[in-house]
Amino acid sequence: MTSMMRVEIGQQPAALRATIDSLLPRLDEVAALAAQTRQVLFIARGTSDNAAVYGSYLIQAHGGRLATLGAPSIATAYRSRVDLDGVLAVGLSQSGQTEEIVETLGWARDCGARTLAITNGAGSPLAQAAELTLLTEAGTEQAVPATKTFTTQLAALAVLAIGLGADLDPGELRAVPDVIAAMLAQPADVEPIVAELAKVPGVVVSARGLAYSAALELAVKLKEACYLHAMGLSYADLLHGPIAVVDAETPAIILAAESGPTLAGSIELAARVTGAGARAYGIGGGPRLAAACSLSLPGPALPEWLAPIGLIVPGQLLTEALARRLGINPDSPRGLSKVTQTD
Amino acid sequence: MTSMMRVEIGQQPAALRATIDSLLPRLDEVAALAAQTRQVLFIARGTSDNAAVYGSYLIQAHGGRLATLGAPSIATAYRSRVDLDGVLAVGLSQSGQTEEIVETLGWARDCGARTLAITNGAGSPLAQAAELTLLTEAGTEQAVPATKTFTTQLAALAVLAIGLGADLDPGELRAVPDVIAAMLAQPADVEPIVAELAKVPGVVVSARGLAYSAALELAVKLKEACYLHAMGLSYADLLHGPIAVVDAETPAIILAAESGPTLAGSIELAARVTGAGARAYGIGGGPRLAAACSLSLPGPALPEWLAPIGLIVPGQLLTEALARRLGINPDSPRGLSKVTQTD
Repeated sequence: MTSMMRVEIGQQPAALRATIDSLLPRLDEVAALAAQTRQVLFIARGTSDNAAVYGSYLIQAHGGRLATLGAPSIATAYRSRVDLDGVLAVGLSQSGQTEEIVETLGWARDCGARTLAITNGAGSPLAQAAELTLLTEAGTEQAVPATKTFTTQLAALAVLAIGLGADLDPGELRAVPDVIAAMLAQPADVEPIVAELAKVPGVVVSARGLAYSAALELAVKLKEACYLHAMGLSYADLLHGPIAVVDAETPAIILAAESGPTLAGSIELAARVTGAGARAYGIGGGPRLAAACSLSLPGPALPEWLAPIGLIVPGQLLTEALARRLGINPDSPRGLSKVTQTD
Repeated sequence: MTSMMRVEIGQQPAALRATIDSLLPRLDEVAALAAQTRQVLFIARGTSDNAAVYGSYLIQAHGGRLATLGAPSIATAYRSRVDLDGVLAVGLSQSGQTEEIVETLGWARDCGARTLAITNGAGSPLAQAAELTLLTEAGTEQAVPATKTFTTQLAALAVLAIGLGADLDPGELRAVPDVIAAMLAQPADVEPIVAELAKVPGVVVSARGLAYSAALELAVKLKEACYLHAMGLSYADLLHGPIAVVDAETPAIILAAESGPTLAGSIELAARVTGAGARAYGIGGGPRLAAACSLSLPGPALPEWLAPIGLIVPGQLLTEALARRLGINPDSPRGLSKVTQTD
């Protein structure tokens, strides 16, 4: 039986195309909203927070603006006032229903920020709370593990970065759906890695820079759908201590774009992992990362700034296949529902 | 044989006292440096990054300023220029030798930020790169897992927050060393939890708000010294998916202050964990958290804003004892050296 998660993974090219086609014409609205701001503050949780990590790196690496992650509990638990004059607060929530995020975006507005929402929920409370909404066009998502809502969030964040003046080519963004479609038309064989991951209790998932967002997201997917002890870490943080955890029972999954300034470090990490007697699985990174890893899956043929949208796709396929191998229904992991309320 | 890690855990009251006595008289210097700034950007890695999380929550919850975490790769890998006018950049490194942090603090200065260092390394490159240095007085630390350098960083961050005008009582900070000394004079019996953790491959470590920093730090300690698959998560993020990972083989350690707005959620999390058939271990949180957990360790008798300095102490003792139980020398985990270089 085909899972809904697998069906929704396959819907990503169409969802991405609809999202990009609908949002790219709105660059002027983004620019107008941001005109009196100097920096971005993301407000999100869970998978949406991993998307925000992508937005943060993209805007800082290519947009010349500070872009960092906020802590919702400052608003909802501590009820503190913080000076947010000159800040563009960007709230992300797939459903647009998460009260914590809606409340924190309202708090940001009250603290002086301009507000923008990225959500798949048209007319949702989050969309209503924001001055401007970039709606993702993912359609209904039924499987609990988010797939198409995550990748369309990344596409919306790419539009946001361009709207903020980043030196990025919208034409490259328009090409993404076809690249993802090509990846899915000839999906990589995940079974050799699935067979190995089915035998271990935990895994490190690592990357750096823009690709770090995809590593964090894959770690969440493996925890929620496969109950694997997946530890998502920047490889710089990994080397500051947690690398000790890697051993014959604890492999590492390493994600990298085919180009960019963090590829060399990703290859070095793979060599260090295998040198420690552990297994390293590569996703993307071209032939040099593949050569340094025990097993690998090809990544997308995309420039580094867009690679995370494609790097998560083999990870989604891996998660879905591993869940089934472990006897778990990937569509409804234990203890979870589709909309999570935290306050 | 007594490990150096255990010796250094015991040195924390004296190290904290020396640090607080030396830094509290310097509030005016902090205020003067920060006078033309409106927000804080932390630059750190590993354990120092966990300390920065404490600083970020403390300054936002009590100081009215935005305080977020920077991404060093924006400086060192992407070599992007970001507008940091009005930003106080705070670099944290125990040794002050980590080139990545030194370089990123220099980048922040070049981007328009004022710069402050928090380090245990007098005369170190990081201290030289900053306009003002708050030196921690931890003395030489020999064990690879940082203990007293971490807690003295938290104390320095408390001084920073007060210097920035937070509504916090320096007298409460001065009382911290005695509270930690009292905890260590009658250390909690960690053996029942050690016996259980020795049998599982992984653990979730969770908290929220100010205590989240201590949870992240305990997760790093358990990974580096015990090779445990320790997943540090805000309980709000945990409920957005990763909670599925908790089961009979995957307990949760939950940290909380005895008061404050995140205590109730911590107790609810403990009930949810035990309700799922998993074991929950509490650190701190008073009698109500203890009652909701399977086993627990008492926390410090400190106000919420200072509790993280004391909450990590039972975690350090737990880590050290678990490492020895597992046949690992806690002073020198595999594959690690005391100063980590990342670039």
